[in-house]
Amino acid sequence: MDHSKAFRIMQQADKLAEFTSMQGGLTRTYLSAQHKQAHQQLANWMTSAGLTTWQDSVGNQWGRKAASNLDAPILILGSHSDTVADAGKYDGNLGVLLAISALEQLQDVEFPFHIDVVAFADEEGTRFDTTLIGSSAVAGIFDPRWLAIEDGEQISMAQAMQTFGLDPQQAGKDRLACEKVLAYLEVHIEQGPVLEAADRAVGVVTGIAGAKRYQLSVKGMAGHAGTVPIGMRADAMCGAAQMTSAIEAYAKQHNLVATVGKCDVVSGSVNVIPGEVNFTLDIRSLEQDSLEKACDDLLTELSVIAEQRGLTFAHQLFYQAQAVPCSERLQQAWGDVVAKVTDKSVTFLPSGAGHDALAMAHLTEVGMLFVRCEKGISHHPLESVMQEDVAVALECTKQMLLAQLRAYGDQSDQ
Amino acid sequence: MDHSKAFRIMQQADKLAEFTSMQGGLTRTYLSAQHKQAHQQLANWMTSAGLTTWQDSVGNQWGRKAASNLDAPILILGSHSDTVADAGKYDGNLGVLLAISALEQLQDVEFPFHIDVVAFADEEGTRFDTTLIGSSAVAGIFDPRWLAIEDGEQISMAQAMQTFGLDPQQAGKDRLACEKVLAYLEVHIEQGPVLEAADRAVGVVTGIAGAKRYQLSVKGMAGHAGTVPIGMRADAMCGAAQMTSAIEAYAKQHNLVATVGKCDVVSGSVNVIPGEVNFTLDIRSLEQDSLEKACDDLLTELSVIAEQRGLTFAHQLFYQAQAVPCSERLQQAWGDVVAKVTDKSVTFLPSGAGHDALAMAHLTEVGMLFVRCEKGISHHPLESVMQEDVAVALECTKQMLLAQLRAYGDQSDQ
Repeated sequence: MDHSKAFRIMQQADKLAEFTSMQGGLTRTYLSAQHKQAHQQLANWMTSAGLTTWQDSVGNQWGRKAASNLDAPILILGSHSDTVADAGKYDGNLGVLLAISALEQLQDVEFPFHIDVVAFADEEGTRFDTTLIGSSAVAGIFDPRWLAIEDGEQISMAQAMQTFGLDPQQAGKDRLACEKVLAYLEVHIEQGPVLEAADRAVGVVTGIAGAKRYQLSVKGMAGHAGTVPIGMRADAMCGAAQMTSAIEAYAKQHNLVATVGKCDVVSGSVNVIPGEVNFTLDIRSLEQDSLEKACDDLLTELSVIAEQRGLTFAHQLFYQAQAVPCSERLQQAWGDVVAKVTDKSVTFLPSGAGHDALAMAHLTEVGMLFVRCEKGISHHPLESVMQEDVAVALECTKQMLLAQLRAYGDQSDQ
Repeated sequence: MDHSKAFRIMQQADKLAEFTSMQGGLTRTYLSAQHKQAHQQLANWMTSAGLTTWQDSVGNQWGRKAASNLDAPILILGSHSDTVADAGKYDGNLGVLLAISALEQLQDVEFPFHIDVVAFADEEGTRFDTTLIGSSAVAGIFDPRWLAIEDGEQISMAQAMQTFGLDPQQAGKDRLACEKVLAYLEVHIEQGPVLEAADRAVGVVTGIAGAKRYQLSVKGMAGHAGTVPIGMRADAMCGAAQMTSAIEAYAKQHNLVATVGKCDVVSGSVNVIPGEVNFTLDIRSLEQDSLEKACDDLLTELSVIAEQRGLTFAHQLFYQAQAVPCSERLQQAWGDVVAKVTDKSVTFLPSGAGHDALAMAHLTEVGMLFVRCEKGISHHPLESVMQEDVAVALECTKQMLLAQLRAYGDQSDQ
């Protein structure tokens, strides 16, 4: 394990965090001046690593370790460089830095395919109301209607592209062709507590969970907290509480995750029986079928609770993402590499969070490696990774590329 | 039953509602111009009813049907004339109008005690941050520190009294002496659904429930809604939900009322596991002992729930009022009158809401009669009473005064 290189990656992550629009913290949004500065810095490091660099139609930063055959297929390795508001330094950025460092170490190894490192310019969707803009453009699922979306200052994405120096008319037109791409590999911090609890530096991702988000509403009858007997109430908060418990129990029983993240008593007051409660449900599962069934089951159960209490219940689906499994072949390959590098049993785990691999799965097979982060904290300035774990992840990334080289040779031999 | 007099009371309630500081609705606060106008109107009606009128040190409006013996004791009959913001027309005001009308009908009956009608100038506490100002002054529990309390426009109660024409130095100094007062009687709308459900025009109040209000807080660990497995969470909302259900179950089992009226997920977001939830508990019981035990039991139960879930739980009592029973003698007297007037079985019910009788109980025994209101709606422009019910309440009030006359005679005979 090369700890000096891991140390350098930690320093680079600190350096990237200087490109921020936020006083005393890190916020770097799509098409901002800081986006440009960070990508210029990444391009410099890519060049130092022997890569040929370019920027694509939506502002993603690329660096290529080219094969001698210009028509060779492409293995893509990357993550994103944008951040949420008041972010940590490793979400996305660590994967980009690991990719550059791994390729720097493999400068003298000749590959029969191109290896492209990509820093996607928008994964978080912090500035505009849509996520995965960078990888969607590469994967051919950039929607031109997004160009009209405005940020908080009424600047449209098209205007922002022009200011940045991009031609919005060209956005997504340089999409990659499926047949040219071998695979997409991504290393990312876990953003959860599983690896820490399992005492593993890294883990192999089995897939990215599908998700659905609902706005839920319960209506009953508001009333005076003192004068309406407990048996004569239609208390919307008591209904929402029972529903929240039902959601939690279902998730525990069916091994998925479900969260009531917001709960608002409309015109709530200490001495008024709640007449209306609005709350949210976020539910995710690695298996799309389980997710669909869970939503059906739960919405039915919540309706029954409402009926039994004389409440009305309404739900509105406002977001959904399909579950995307990582390819069996790439899971196996990451697993072999992790076992060899760490000499420990391998933790396989699902990703409950979305990643660029979601979009890239439209283009090619995807394989992800997670790096342990402290207490699972992410999207927060306290986001933290250990240098030793970065060293492990770097070695795994390098070995994974070499494994792909061998696999490609085997495949060609057949 | 005199329906023309009930009709006049309905008209008078409409007239009083014109004294409002709110465009298109009714808001009449303590020491406002509208307070002065409404009390002037009440004084006129009192005079027409043959009563001698005066205003006391805190702006309550009085009218007396005097006994021939100037040193005779006093039976007080009243309610309040102030309102909440955007109020209904009957809360408080109905009781004052019924008292005036009843005494008007009894002009020719001689009583051996004074009968004083009072319109308390502040019961709701809409303007200053304290309730029952009017009745507290009469009962001798006016706290001079209240004079420094400021309204929303930084006008102190003392300043407001001066502007109104009162001397704040005198506030509460004309308190009544216990030995001079026979009893306090109050007729008030129920503000709850019990009489409507029981199909009764009026009901006898057994007492005013004691109340405690707590700010509750549950803290767990915020986290990503996708990445933290359901079994590894310390979800503050799931904890608060279970606690809300426990509160409801306890109230149902122990025949008291408890309400979680506010619930706020701190920094809540659809895709973030709640790390902190603040919510409120309002709990009331007619029996002070039951109330104390319920709070002890529940706070212990909630602490246990928190502990089992790895959450921290905190509670802060921020308001309490002692339970005040209505006197057995006056309950019995109202019951007899109601049975005679309505020829139906009598509904006895507790008051979950606070009333001027709470303060007056410091001075004398109290007895209250509730009038049915539509759907139990109160503190709302839709607050509504039926004219037929007002006729019943008026007849009961009149008969109650006559019953007190007879009882006083019997007492004197002994």
